[in-house]
Amino acid sequence: MQKERIAELLEQRQPGYSLPRDFYVDDDMFRADMKAVYETDWLFACSTVEIPRPGDYLTLQVGDNPVVVLRNRDGGISAFHNTCRHRGSKLCLKDKGRANRLVCPYHQWVYELDGSLIHARQMPEGFDTTQHSLTPVHVELVCGMVYICLADTPPSLHRFRAGVTPYIAPHMPDRTKVAFTSTIVEEANWKLVIENNRECYHCAANHPELLVSMVEFALPDDPQVAGRFQALMDRSTSRWDALGLPHQPAEGGNEFRCIRLPFNENCISFTMDGTSACKKLLADFTEPDLGSVRMFRVPNNWNHFLSDHIIHFRVLPISANRTELRTTWLVHEDAVEGVDYDVEHLTAVWLATNSEDGELAENNHRGILSRAYRPGPYAPSEFMLNHFTDWYAGKMAEYAGVRHTRFAAE
Amino acid sequence: MQKERIAELLEQRQPGYSLPRDFYVDDDMFRADMKAVYETDWLFACSTVEIPRPGDYLTLQVGDNPVVVLRNRDGGISAFHNTCRHRGSKLCLKDKGRANRLVCPYHQWVYELDGSLIHARQMPEGFDTTQHSLTPVHVELVCGMVYICLADTPPSLHRFRAGVTPYIAPHMPDRTKVAFTSTIVEEANWKLVIENNRECYHCAANHPELLVSMVEFALPDDPQVAGRFQALMDRSTSRWDALGLPHQPAEGGNEFRCIRLPFNENCISFTMDGTSACKKLLADFTEPDLGSVRMFRVPNNWNHFLSDHIIHFRVLPISANRTELRTTWLVHEDAVEGVDYDVEHLTAVWLATNSEDGELAENNHRGILSRAYRPGPYAPSEFMLNHFTDWYAGKMAEYAGVRHTRFAAE
Amino acid sequence: MQKERIAELLEQRQPGYSLPRDFYVDDDMFRADMKAVYETDWLFACSTVEIPRPGDYLTLQVGDNPVVVLRNRDGGISAFHNTCRHRGSKLCLKDKGRANRLVCPYHQWVYELDGSLIHARQMPEGFDTTQHSLTPVHVELVCGMVYICLADTPPSLHRFRAGVTPYIAPHMPDRTKVAFTSTIVEEANWKLVIENNRECYHCAANHPELLVSMVEFALPDDPQVAGRFQALMDRSTSRWDALGLPHQPAEGGNEFRCIRLPFNENCISFTMDGTSACKKLLADFTEPDLGSVRMFRVPNNWNHFLSDHIIHFRVLPISANRTELRTTWLVHEDAVEGVDYDVEHLTAVWLATNSEDGELAENNHRGILSRAYRPGPYAPSEFMLNHFTDWYAGKMAEYAGVRHTRFAAE
Repeated sequence: MQKERIAELLEQRQPGYSLPRDFYVDDDMFRADMKAVYETDWLFACSTVEIPRPGDYLTLQVGDNPVVVLRNRDGGISAFHNTCRHRGSKLCLKDKGRANRLVCPYHQWVYELDGSLIHARQMPEGFDTTQHSLTPVHVELVCGMVYICLADTPPSLHRFRAGVTPYIAPHMPDRTKVAFTSTIVEEANWKLVIENNRECYHCAANHPELLVSMVEFALPDDPQVAGRFQALMDRSTSRWDALGLPHQPAEGGNEFRCIRLPFNENCISFTMDGTSACKKLLADFTEPDLGSVRMFRVPNNWNHFLSDHIIHFRVLPISANRTELRTTWLVHEDAVEGVDYDVEHLTAVWLATNSEDGELAENNHRGILSRAYRPGPYAPSEFMLNHFTDWYAGKMAEYAGVRHTRFAAE
Repeated sequence: MQKERIAELLEQRQPGYSLPRDFYVDDDMFRADMKAVYETDWLFACSTVEIPRPGDYLTLQVGDNPVVVLRNRDGGISAFHNTCRHRGSKLCLKDKGRANRLVCPYHQWVYELDGSLIHARQMPEGFDTTQHSLTPVHVELVCGMVYICLADTPPSLHRFRAGVTPYIAPHMPDRTKVAFTSTIVEEANWKLVIENNRECYHCAANHPELLVSMVEFALPDDPQVAGRFQALMDRSTSRWDALGLPHQPAEGGNEFRCIRLPFNENCISFTMDGTSACKKLLADFTEPDLGSVRMFRVPNNWNHFLSDHIIHFRVLPISANRTELRTTWLVHEDAVEGVDYDVEHLTAVWLATNSEDGELAENNHRGILSRAYRPGPYAPSEFMLNHFTDWYAGKMAEYAGVRHTRFAAE
Repeated sequence: MQKERIAELLEQRQPGYSLPRDFYVDDDMFRADMKAVYETDWLFACSTVEIPRPGDYLTLQVGDNPVVVLRNRDGGISAFHNTCRHRGSKLCLKDKGRANRLVCPYHQWVYELDGSLIHARQMPEGFDTTQHSLTPVHVELVCGMVYICLADTPPSLHRFRAGVTPYIAPHMPDRTKVAFTSTIVEEANWKLVIENNRECYHCAANHPELLVSMVEFALPDDPQVAGRFQALMDRSTSRWDALGLPHQPAEGGNEFRCIRLPFNENCISFTMDGTSACKKLLADFTEPDLGSVRMFRVPNNWNHFLSDHIIHFRVLPISANRTELRTTWLVHEDAVEGVDYDVEHLTAVWLATNSEDGELAENNHRGILSRAYRPGPYAPSEFMLNHFTDWYAGKMAEYAGVRHTRFAAE
């Protein structure tokens, strides 16, 4: 019945327009999103440097599903459903922590960092611990980013990895450390949070802090600004080419985007005045003006890689009308707070921007609740919303088992 | 299926008794109420004097539907669904404000005060602004009261307008201004808020402040108090007749009531001591003791018109168990605060009474949740609840497409 | 449809394992629980000494159903649905109070303490008060404990009464008074609150305060600790036998348990140091070391009866993921606060333990929400959870009208 409703809503959908109302606000559609997307796709979880030592763990919540991501004894990253195999208690309770082994707080069943149950006190003779390991969650690492997948058989990450590595690897994300983390909850559907991020049509009137450094229309494939963009690029590309840093858009289809873009003139970082955010540059960079690599991947993250810091944004849906946004700022592992960087200076622009975007998404959600809401046309500068909604419609069609052939982009 | 349930509940309904449980507490029935009543009928929105100048606007929420009511350039009042035709963002965010044009906070689409889209920056050649006007909401003005209707084809307001104008017009509501506004949320179904207002059977034990000035049984059509009422009326009617002020009950059927009633002896206004609430009388009145015109209209408002002030009460459902009550006090447009009137003196009685009524409605709701709740008989002094529940049953029968012929009143 | 789902979930159920996910977290299953259990079975409401005098009343909430329990004029206990027969208002508003008659706060309908309507002001000639009595709720008293039942035809309490009276009666609960009451709300399903109480497998790591006095494995029918238990018992049983105080487990099947158990050596009460909680002993006891009678009854209470105080624990579900726990401490009616007992000393252990258990139950609930949750095996020391889940499965099978024959225990 739910699948019939999805099919009906997809029928109503018009490519190039925002989605029909219920996709954004309906509780049943939210449950469908969880199954069709969040329990199926690769999701950005965190940076590897957030859990540097064996036993370091970080927890997150994918809808109803608590997950723990940890550094295992081999130095690799593993992830598990964060629920004990005894009576189901949540296992790791803190947002971040460190544990030699995972011990359930309820009855102290003890799991190795590889998920195997190594001690279940008082269980009888014949109890088979091997049948009670933690349920694993798939993990892939891409340039210091931990991706997890709750599906039994995860889709391939090959194109993504191949596509983004040349852009990100030179920034050496593995040689960074966390400078700051912020988590906010927006009273809006997760797709509105993503759509908000996928265009800068709203920037001029809403993001004074961001537009100090960010070029409003720095997108080579935005049909309206190709000329202005080219002039800006020309300022930088010869230098980047000399350093071997790629800057042309990657071929990511609707799955991901990756590109290196310049800042406004006289700006080198996302700060309130465009000046450097951290004196100690990443990797072995000596040139502070590397613009920023901007990466986005459906369904849940976007990232900025600069000469002096990295920012990860992670989106996790809570309910049809609530979404968590977690932002993490990374600086060089040897940078010293108070000497090389100041947390307020480093984070001010995006803390302000996140807060502004949160309010925009919330008002968007409130307005879409109206029975009078009709999907409206995306502007040319919102072309990336075509990619996103096409991708989403495709996922929902697949989930509902119907063919959906009307797409706007490509 | 929902309509079958409504039909079943109507079958169970006994005229002269409170409604079957689910009409008051069930989420599906609430959604039916919204469709059958609040998205169909005329609703009281505000007073015209709340938005005196072109561009003044006021927002309200009819269930999920944000609506903006504004003064247009012609000096008339218009209303629109408060959702941008681009991507649906809520347009006007404040409760009240003033705008030369309506500019969407998200991407700055600009609408004229008549709802037409006059600028959508960055939209491509060929984008047809005329197809993206704000969706209008019907508006009618009745004696300074703004009524809105979300239906495509609104019902007639003719009888209501004709019926109440002779009572209200002499108070010249257009020559008033807002002295105070209060908004509270009651954890009770909207019908319990209305039922509470439709009888004074509960007054003696609950409203000491109100009963200073208000006559508990001042209702000529209340069968139990006809005699006592007549004596009270006789004190006043010859004076009112001389002034040409009507006082007999209007013929409003179940749709509305309008009547002029006397205060208790030595009282002339709804104040804690019965004294005047505002020295500057409304209109060109010189006589301070005009009793009060009491008007009620289904589904969502009641009002008092006195010699020295006007009070509007507006009910808006939020969910099955939450209802907003907004109260507005109006005084003569030339009255001076601190000289002619004192806000605390003016508002004390009804602020107290609203608060007491809120608690009564909330306890009523809690008790009706019980599986042991059985509809109980209305007392004779609750005869107006027969009108209200008959009207409601009729609306629901119409919505469910069934005949419902058992009514208590008339 | 709901019953089909219950049947399906029962099919999935494996005796000896925690229940399938939806029994714990699903809203529909919660509604089924209410009907199959809480509106059917006997429920512990309070102690008789909480309402000692005629007109003393106590209110509680069984799901959506407000109930009032009161001392009637005959000195007996009655209970009623706490909803007025006029328009359904909640009648008694306070948690506890005293009233000569029950007067509805809305329109002052007056009920005798036996529930009969004795005055309904303004109701017309011919109104039949005898048809508008309060709806009674069944009441039974068992050793000073008030049990209520919302079913039309309550099940028998005979076995329970016969089984527990020999253990409890000697503590003379009718000659006690309330020393303290605590009410907390846990964000967990009620069955997780009960399961948490039915085992001490979790005690060692979580209840340092409780384990000062309580013997972790003091259960004669726990297969793993029979030997250790016997040694402990031997210390006490000859003394108890001499006093005529029973201590062997009662025959309660899955319905109830009752047993007298010793404290740890040198401990005589549930206090932080194991010392006496109240100098004035209950009944005519002179021997302070009587261990504690521990009683549990499905679905909603457990109790401790010591030489110097009694503790009642009452569980009431609020929603699928919220449960109220009310705890009441009783001491001898002649005990003097500050002289014979100190409230903090009396209550510290169980206030701490309740708080710890609340957190455990909440984490249990959060983990079970995971799609990866699979019912896990109960440890031998969790054998009482077999009784509980067998009993629950039986109730749900009965409600769904299916046969359920796979049980773990007995």
